[in-house]
Amino acid sequence: MKIELAKSYGFCFGVKRAIKIAENSKNASTIGELIHNSLEIDRLKNNFNVKTLKDISELKNEKKAIIRTHGITKEGLANLKSRDVEIIDATCPFVTKPQQIVEKMSSEGYEIVFFGDINHPEVKGVMSYSSKNVYVILDESELETVKLPSKIAVVSQTTKKIEKFTKIVSYLMQRVKEVRVFNTICNATLENQEAVRELSSRADVMVIIGGKNSSNTKQLYLISKNLCPDSYLIESENELELKWFQNKKLCGISAGASTPEWVIQNVINKLENLTHKDS
Amino acid sequence: MKIELAKSYGFCFGVKRAIKIAENSKNASTIGELIHNSLEIDRLKNNFNVKTLKDISELKNEKKAIIRTHGITKEGLANLKSRDVEIIDATCPFVTKPQQIVEKMSSEGYEIVFFGDINHPEVKGVMSYSSKNVYVILDESELETVKLPSKIAVVSQTTKKIEKFTKIVSYLMQRVKEVRVFNTICNATLENQEAVRELSSRADVMVIIGGKNSSNTKQLYLISKNLCPDSYLIESENELELKWFQNKKLCGISAGASTPEWVIQNVINKLENLTHKDS
Repeated sequence: MKIELAKSYGFCFGVKRAIKIAENSKNASTIGELIHNSLEIDRLKNNFNVKTLKDISELKNEKKAIIRTHGITKEGLANLKSRDVEIIDATCPFVTKPQQIVEKMSSEGYEIVFFGDINHPEVKGVMSYSSKNVYVILDESELETVKLPSKIAVVSQTTKKIEKFTKIVSYLMQRVKEVRVFNTICNATLENQEAVRELSSRADVMVIIGGKNSSNTKQLYLISKNLCPDSYLIESENELELKWFQNKKLCGISAGASTPEWVIQNVINKLENLTHKDS
Repeated sequence: MKIELAKSYGFCFGVKRAIKIAENSKNASTIGELIHNSLEIDRLKNNFNVKTLKDISELKNEKKAIIRTHGITKEGLANLKSRDVEIIDATCPFVTKPQQIVEKMSSEGYEIVFFGDINHPEVKGVMSYSSKNVYVILDESELETVKLPSKIAVVSQTTKKIEKFTKIVSYLMQRVKEVRVFNTICNATLENQEAVRELSSRADVMVIIGGKNSSNTKQLYLISKNLCPDSYLIESENELELKWFQNKKLCGISAGASTPEWVIQNVINKLENLTHKDS
């Protein structure tokens, strides 16, 4: 069996940057998980004593607080600033952008339609910057009973799919006179998605590596599963099962934007070992 | 054979308004055809001595110049103002709107994508209000080789179809960070389209009445033809042919936004006469 990595996979710019910031902030504490990857969080804890707090309320005698890649709410930031703690901002610049857009647009009188998961910390952070109504939706049908104003600004969670985003915009165009669309979907996510689409259309088995609570990893998995039914989502090499690879010719590999390179390498090593034994 | 009128058809608000303005401006001259309907233009000439000039260059000793429903270019308006003539503005308010949008957006630094026919007088008028690049397109593929800036404002000719407009916007969203969408498609057009869609899906023959150079009439005809292959586009009752209606049960009727009520009534009378003789 041949093993092939997707052309683009794994860590994006914002995650690489956040890890570097954390590595340079020994003994700091992050407010919530720095990134969606428990293995990398363990490594930062073990090697750099970077702890993970559940939320601000757990902040006691810490000297340094790191804001995670997903950002923080406006209120959370104000709370941090009122404390005697050094604030280290590891918010992904691509997340800061929609925060700024939402703040500016709402101040200009636009209500906001936000395409995203209402429970995702990035979304909670972005929403908090609006001074007007924010409609957080995953599907345009959720707006069916909403009385919309004549102008709307539309923003997306960075990890969402463009195809659905365009559908939401098409729907809004037919209900609202002005729709101001900001494509805040991250390019890195798109590139990883494009690469997994290409690879999964050729492979007969796909392994997607990433946190099971990571929305961009799940997205990659869904695209892959759609084109290659034998697709598997795993967090580490320990979940690999030999039977997945029996009689397969090409195994494609991709990884979520929060999956560390060393985790991917471990999977490849184990996979080579497994299939080598098998042959 | 039963004859049924579409729920919404014929004159829109802007055309009704322009005709009223012309009727109240005896002996005036319109710069270009007031509306896209030669029969109504003849009536205004015969009953109110409202003449039609080809363009401003034909303006000689006229005392009153009427700007037609499609509007006029910014330069044309300046030209008119420099002359000793009373200017009567019959521009449809729904056409004035995109002119204002294009002027404002270009002054705010947006380049413009305009969904429309480059040769249509409405489009020429709207375009002239931009101080930045305007890309007039009928299909998103026309932008494939264009180097686009990071923000674009998108406007549509009032008589275009929303389905295609949403496709153009979806395309732009994937190339440009900010797409500011103004849905300037006229509601009257949409209502007539919706009504013809409903009726042509039930009828076994359709007659669409309107100017053959009227883009909204052609649009109605295309929608109708798609759902009812026996669809005919005529300008007056004189074009009706008995054979179209043989063995038909339901004849649907609609008319373009520039088609006068009396023309529609003439068609219905002739049709009842024809099919009555036939039975």
